Amino acid sequence: MTLATFQQQLKSENIQAFLVTRNNMYIKQDIKDEENMLLHLSGFSGSDGYMLVTPHKAWLFVDSRYYIQARLETATNTIEVVDVKSFFPEIIGLLKEQNIQNLTCNPWCISISDWNLLKKAQINMIANETLLANKVCPCDDIFEHVLEFAGKPAQEKCSEIAKLSLENFDAMLITSADIVSWLANLRAKDLEFTPVLRAYAVLSKNGELKIFSDNCRYKDIMPLSELYAELKKYADKKIAVDHKTTPQKMLDYICDTTLVVNMLNPIYLFKLNKNAVELNGFKNAHIRDGVSMVKFLYWLENNYQNKTETDIVDKLKSFRKQNDMYFSDSFATIAASAKNAAIVHYHPDTRNSVTLQENSVLLLDSGAQYFDGTTDVTRTIAIGNPSDEIKNAFTQVLKAHIKLSSLIFPNNIQAVALDAICRSELWRYYKNYGHGTGHSVGHFSNVHEYPFGLSPNNFRTVQENYVTSIEPGYYQENKYGIRIENMVYVEKTDNDDFLQFKNLTLVPIDKRLINVYLLDNEERNWLNNYHKEVINCLAPHLDSKENIWLKGVCSPL
Amino acid sequence: MTLATFQQQLKSENIQAFLVTRNNMYIKQDIKDEENMLLHLSGFSGSDGYMLVTPHKAWLFVDSRYYIQARLETATNTIEVVDVKSFFPEIIGLLKEQNIQNLTCNPWCISISDWNLLKKAQINMIANETLLANKVCPCDDIFEHVLEFAGKPAQEKCSEIAKLSLENFDAMLITSADIVSWLANLRAKDLEFTPVLRAYAVLSKNGELKIFSDNCRYKDIMPLSELYAELKKYADKKIAVDHKTTPQKMLDYICDTTLVVNMLNPIYLFKLNKNAVELNGFKNAHIRDGVSMVKFLYWLENNYQNKTETDIVDKLKSFRKQNDMYFSDSFATIAASAKNAAIVHYHPDTRNSVTLQENSVLLLDSGAQYFDGTTDVTRTIAIGNPSDEIKNAFTQVLKAHIKLSSLIFPNNIQAVALDAICRSELWRYYKNYGHGTGHSVGHFSNVHEYPFGLSPNNFRTVQENYVTSIEPGYYQENKYGIRIENMVYVEKTDNDDFLQFKNLTLVPIDKRLINVYLLDNEERNWLNNYHKEVINCLAPHLDSKENIWLKGVCSPL
Repeated sequence: MTLATFQQQLKSENIQAFLVTRNNMYIKQDIKDEENMLLHLSGFSGSDGYMLVTPHKAWLFVDSRYYIQARLETATNTIEVVDVKSFFPEIIGLLKEQNIQNLTCNPWCISISDWNLLKKAQINMIANETLLANKVCPCDDIFEHVLEFAGKPAQEKCSEIAKLSLENFDAMLITSADIVSWLANLRAKDLEFTPVLRAYAVLSKNGELKIFSDNCRYKDIMPLSELYAELKKYADKKIAVDHKTTPQKMLDYICDTTLVVNMLNPIYLFKLNKNAVELNGFKNAHIRDGVSMVKFLYWLENNYQNKTETDIVDKLKSFRKQNDMYFSDSFATIAASAKNAAIVHYHPDTRNSVTLQENSVLLLDSGAQYFDGTTDVTRTIAIGNPSDEIKNAFTQVLKAHIKLSSLIFPNNIQAVALDAICRSELWRYYKNYGHGTGHSVGHFSNVHEYPFGLSPNNFRTVQENYVTSIEPGYYQENKYGIRIENMVYVEKTDNDDFLQFKNLTLVPIDKRLINVYLLDNEERNWLNNYHKEVINCLAPHLDSKENIWLKGVCSPL
Repeated sequence: MTLATFQQQLKSENIQAFLVTRNNMYIKQDIKDEENMLLHLSGFSGSDGYMLVTPHKAWLFVDSRYYIQARLETATNTIEVVDVKSFFPEIIGLLKEQNIQNLTCNPWCISISDWNLLKKAQINMIANETLLANKVCPCDDIFEHVLEFAGKPAQEKCSEIAKLSLENFDAMLITSADIVSWLANLRAKDLEFTPVLRAYAVLSKNGELKIFSDNCRYKDIMPLSELYAELKKYADKKIAVDHKTTPQKMLDYICDTTLVVNMLNPIYLFKLNKNAVELNGFKNAHIRDGVSMVKFLYWLENNYQNKTETDIVDKLKSFRKQNDMYFSDSFATIAASAKNAAIVHYHPDTRNSVTLQENSVLLLDSGAQYFDGTTDVTRTIAIGNPSDEIKNAFTQVLKAHIKLSSLIFPNNIQAVALDAICRSELWRYYKNYGHGTGHSVGHFSNVHEYPFGLSPNNFRTVQENYVTSIEPGYYQENKYGIRIENMVYVEKTDNDDFLQFKNLTLVPIDKRLINVYLLDNEERNWLNNYHKEVINCLAPHLDSKENIWLKGVCSPL
């Protein structure tokens, strides 16, 4: 269905406006292209956005990470792209401005909290499940995430959480695919980058977990009709429901007499705190991933001429695929040459790929899902001899990266504070970046793990054993883009009141892009120590030519 | 009335528990000792706290700034001092723990929002106005804050705010003394440190301001009975009320049919943004204040032997009083020697004052109200030759001070972010401090200006022309305390997207306490430039001996 056809339908059905989300019934989870109605109608492929459609107009709301991309991917004569800081206040503002009182939306594809936000703003919300259906493709390849990688049996997780979080509840409704997958130690193969099982679940006070899905069959997984029956049992009981990740539609299946308490699903916080086996898996996965990256970088140095961005994506994948335990990439690789690198979430167009530009940079953001851990790394690589402007910007971004990476910080510090400390190194050059400084990474799960992230809007506190990326950047539209991303985990310092980060990522940082005069001694030491660690961990897994090359690019500054 | 008598009364009147606040009807404003029921019953003199009293027990809730002080000032055999991060969650926790369902409080002395917080937690709230009365002492010395200092006529402020903030309202109820004073360009002389007029007001849509008070008479100020009559006129209208600063009792005077919208009083945000005349006044006030401080420091260097902390307070005041435009001190001077300096808000005990300890520090936090501006400065001063440990800690605090003072930061950055950037310089030494990094300062008004402050719990954004203190510290209980505080204002940089601070305070920083090896070049330059500015601004106002001394203590590092 084209946007025009959809608008025709709105007109014929007398619908004033329709809110298209990027969700199916698994709110804010990864989604297949064929399930993604926002992509389908607008052409916009980014991971976050909303479109408001009336019979005669359409507005696509995206944040600053996606603004350039959204304008490139959509037909801007029919869709107006709106760059927003916060989606719903600005969507509501536009509805008021356009005098739209009635808003139709598929109640499967919007969270209870977003639905309520709109209602609170005096918008008359109309549920329509047919016009733009909730689509979830079937999946028949489900497998166990075995104890050797998961570190804790599913039953133990369930009992522990029931004991700690369900003291005042009879049950918890879980509608987040990544939470169900983590809790049940199950994974699935249907999504390209995210090995989660898409199912709902109910965890009861006694620690019993029941899983429900209409899109997969496996052992005890029951159809959704059984979930609705199960929920009826709680007619006079108290259940916890996370309004932010549960679709509005689910309220139809919860009895009016059930006491529903809206809360962040507490399992998210258990999941953020990686256990020792998961952390060890992350470390091993990063050695493998580092080896692939080094083999790739060595190849690139000798073969970059006339290569296109898609050649880069394919070649890097070919190295990663040779690894033990490789399952998939963890997201669509971003290989962006020169000015394309200024598009924060750029993906090369396979039909029309660009040749790497000489005397500029290649920004390469990629990662993989291994059975024992997930990786996500960005390197900005010199192609030929980039300008001093680029080198200075790279060095400034590196300073910001080192600042946060080597920071000592007190327990319970808020994410927003760490985000600002990283950026502060760039502010002195009047620079900044329009995305978060980092995101939590799931273990063989979502590469962007909710709800912790190093960003200005995140007030969660940082805890021991969290795994996050650190990825400051700088983007000069139409010229170049720079980002340096490592994954780290949080550990205690020698002082019980303070924490620090430890590196997971093991990939050389391109010294050709460094203006050494901008680094102080501590920063130079950090880089030299980092490169020493890269050599120590990777050398045993490389051949002699690769090792000679690695020693060169990792030699002390 | 003693605490014991009060507890007797609770018993005889069958009151399960009483919440004593530090407020009279002017919520969260400065208060006289004789109006301060918390001080009266507990002995605790700090600026923030709550006491929960039952017939048999009493708990005093204070934050970490006041924990040591509260234990020293109260009879700890009858009052248990509780160190809290956030008052109401912990008060509610204790009520639950003690199985207290009914809580009595004077509805004049608690805000609507705090009352609601307790009610939401299923506490049965009982109003009692007699047991612990709302006391406001009369004031008959009210005067105009003239245009020469205020920079904008009252009528212009009222019209502007009515136009910008009352578009959707018929009126605004104003119960904050500092807001009424600012809006009406009026001040009063009844409080020792804060020249605000204690009155309520109603600002109507057309920009008309009506002022009401039972404790003062001046021109058009009407008694409170007239306010209650005025509020009746809004029976079918819409008024804005700030629940955080309005006493619960006022709801009795607002008709049930009035549509009351709870919001932060928007005038606070206008007031934070100082106009050019106010800023200029701040600058001039700081020159005068700097002159007094230098005269004092010069005197101290030659006379510190055998002086007590109260001698310091008196001597400093005698210098300040000689200034043109001096009105009062802006708060009770903190002069704390050695281990007393570890008590963040220490005030010397006049009955039992301590002699300055040799080979340690004097922490001196003081300020004044001048008709054209308010000052607040802390210096930590070497007495004799303090230990290397103290010097290192002083230098580390100085690094934190310089870090924030010289920071360039983007528009709309949150206070919490700047707070963390300042602290991050101390974290690397495993150090931190238990108070905010800074507070907004009112113009010839409250020295702590609500609602902006550089602290971990403040998410307001920093704006051009805000005036704030920067005051990192470090406190080693039972040994020493360090704080370095300057006032600054916020101005644009050459780049429109970024802001910076400009110094207001002009007082030398004690170089005898600096370990130069801990400073980098930029930090050394900052200090040398700062001292150059101090000399340039103050020299014309000092005699030749003082100037010779000043040049010495301000010579480049």
